[in-house]
Amino acid sequence: MKKESKVTPWEVSGKVDYQRLIKEFGLSKIDEKLLKKIEKCTGELHFMLRRGLFFAHRDLDFALEQYEKKNLFLYTGCGPSGPIHIGHAFIWEFVRWLQEKFDLDLWFQFTDDEKFLLNKDKSYKEIQEWMYENMLDIIAIGFNPKKTHFLIDTKHAGLMYPEAIKVAKKINFSMVKSSFGFTNQTNLGMIFFTSVQAVPAFLPCVIKKKKLACLIPHAVDQDPHFRLTRDILPKLGYYKPSSIQALFLPPLTGSEGKMSSSKDMNLLMTDSPKEIERKIKKYAFSGGQKTIEEHRKKGGNPDIDVSYQYLKMFFEPDDDKLKQIYEDYKSGKITTSELKDYLIKKINAYLKKHQERRKEAKKLIDKFIFSE
Amino acid sequence: MKKESKVTPWEVSGKVDYQRLIKEFGLSKIDEKLLKKIEKCTGELHFMLRRGLFFAHRDLDFALEQYEKKNLFLYTGCGPSGPIHIGHAFIWEFVRWLQEKFDLDLWFQFTDDEKFLLNKDKSYKEIQEWMYENMLDIIAIGFNPKKTHFLIDTKHAGLMYPEAIKVAKKINFSMVKSSFGFTNQTNLGMIFFTSVQAVPAFLPCVIKKKKLACLIPHAVDQDPHFRLTRDILPKLGYYKPSSIQALFLPPLTGSEGKMSSSKDMNLLMTDSPKEIERKIKKYAFSGGQKTIEEHRKKGGNPDIDVSYQYLKMFFEPDDDKLKQIYEDYKSGKITTSELKDYLIKKINAYLKKHQERRKEAKKLIDKFIFSE
Repeated sequence: MKKESKVTPWEVSGKVDYQRLIKEFGLSKIDEKLLKKIEKCTGELHFMLRRGLFFAHRDLDFALEQYEKKNLFLYTGCGPSGPIHIGHAFIWEFVRWLQEKFDLDLWFQFTDDEKFLLNKDKSYKEIQEWMYENMLDIIAIGFNPKKTHFLIDTKHAGLMYPEAIKVAKKINFSMVKSSFGFTNQTNLGMIFFTSVQAVPAFLPCVIKKKKLACLIPHAVDQDPHFRLTRDILPKLGYYKPSSIQALFLPPLTGSEGKMSSSKDMNLLMTDSPKEIERKIKKYAFSGGQKTIEEHRKKGGNPDIDVSYQYLKMFFEPDDDKLKQIYEDYKSGKITTSELKDYLIKKINAYLKKHQERRKEAKKLIDKFIFSE
Repeated sequence: MKKESKVTPWEVSGKVDYQRLIKEFGLSKIDEKLLKKIEKCTGELHFMLRRGLFFAHRDLDFALEQYEKKNLFLYTGCGPSGPIHIGHAFIWEFVRWLQEKFDLDLWFQFTDDEKFLLNKDKSYKEIQEWMYENMLDIIAIGFNPKKTHFLIDTKHAGLMYPEAIKVAKKINFSMVKSSFGFTNQTNLGMIFFTSVQAVPAFLPCVIKKKKLACLIPHAVDQDPHFRLTRDILPKLGYYKPSSIQALFLPPLTGSEGKMSSSKDMNLLMTDSPKEIERKIKKYAFSGGQKTIEEHRKKGGNPDIDVSYQYLKMFFEPDDDKLKQIYEDYKSGKITTSELKDYLIKKINAYLKKHQERRKEAKKLIDKFIFSE
């Protein structure tokens, strides 16, 4: 990875070199053999697997073995500090697919404590309001209400804090200093927090009084938390959680960093069709040429074109269609403007359905929030 | 204070120089004027005040003002990691008196998280068992069940953790490093813990939706926690808690350090009369002379005699009797053995009543544990 790039749970900046990240974090690449194993369980491969968007893992083989013994659950999460954007939905659409295909319980953590502790300028109330809004989007993604359990770090602290301290007892300041780049100026809540993030990886074992295995689908920036979790859990008598890790959905403006709620240039789940159109047309980084004439002659570069990347990563599941677009854009047969129009249509079709389901989600919240 | 002495919430060792502690911690001494103010409220002065055993304070004047406005509550606590000894009861007998005379709500925190996090060799279960035993002793002290609210850090985490993170956001590692002597090897739970200890100082305001003032009676070693708490609470819109601080009850063997549950040589609330007799006779450090003849001639030194100190600090509330004992021991009229017999009789009378009430305490636990 270039020196200027940075990947931590709280900051992703610069051009991310995923091959280097695999080496640096000590991840395993998802290879053909493993894909075959998944396909054996699910009957099909999600395009995000086929296209290498979920590209790395830890002990996924073990998770699949445990699945066959009906001994596996899923754990993922949301940090509620702003609106949900398509970078979040990208991960969760895959999680939903996993839940459906493997028929698994999913424990969904809301790290409202972390987001409050991290953001100097955000009040507790503001975070709680965002959490409510975020829950609506997550429900609208279509998770199974019977098998999905929302865990809220503050609301469920009665359940989680007694478990978190068991983790915390085994982690010292040196360890979080090197894992997260903490300093003497880091606040006590942030220092403690990784213990809380570890809890859903074994809480279902506590609740169900059974030694279950855990699979965590997540974007690769969360890996430092789960590296620590994996070190600690066997000491508490649990399995190391497995993980399956995704690339970052790039921001509109190009391929450095990741899409973020805190910046203006993102695509929100609540954006109107007009807003999506405006943002894509104005900001989406283009791999096309400066003039149409030049584009027709030289062709565009889909590999750096953000619109093409969004189709590949999220909005065009059809491999044949995607291939055609790739070739047509590369040859100059379709222009950037046409490519953007196609993406806008795709996104707006997706969001239309999402927003309809979102309206219904309010009624379902109580079904999703875990209660003993 | 001599170099070798140490006073932190987790360690008290060496000969404690209280005058120096006042200066070092920045405490105020309880003077005649303040004693008069207290007497005005209560109609009488507890002997622990008359004798300077509760010797220092922070903003006690403010607490008394707030008391007159019916705006004050008490907060004290117990760290459950072993049996209750008379060093604990010494503080709590005074707290009970405060509760009764001022007719105040008392929030009683059980820091089971801290004790679990602190003791490498103690399991979570062991701490929970000690907590139950400790509660029986505390109830037996005679607190008002209608006005005493047990807060258990783990059990009430649902209530306390959301408040603790508001404190934690305002304290960084540097601050706890210097306050508590933490290092890079300190575990994350201990680092976070002072935020939890702060919570009962303002939780009643949250529950009752009213800006109340808090008075914390405690042994002086807990002051570093509440110094931090006092810095933070005004930033969250609460009053700085006031405190009234006690000397340490010395261990049986002499005047260095404090009585501790973790050492064998202490006097437990559950000790039998024979056990008390054995311990006092065997261990209680004597200010007497080597032989009876020498003692009759030269007299003893009550100021270093542990039996005398226990009478003064706890078991002889009658000032005239105490004075007589002081003089008689100093003149050699009473021997160490006679002094010890007197103390043993006093302690066993106290413990007999305590142990009777302790048997009844099991039925009362549910009344004491806070529920919303």
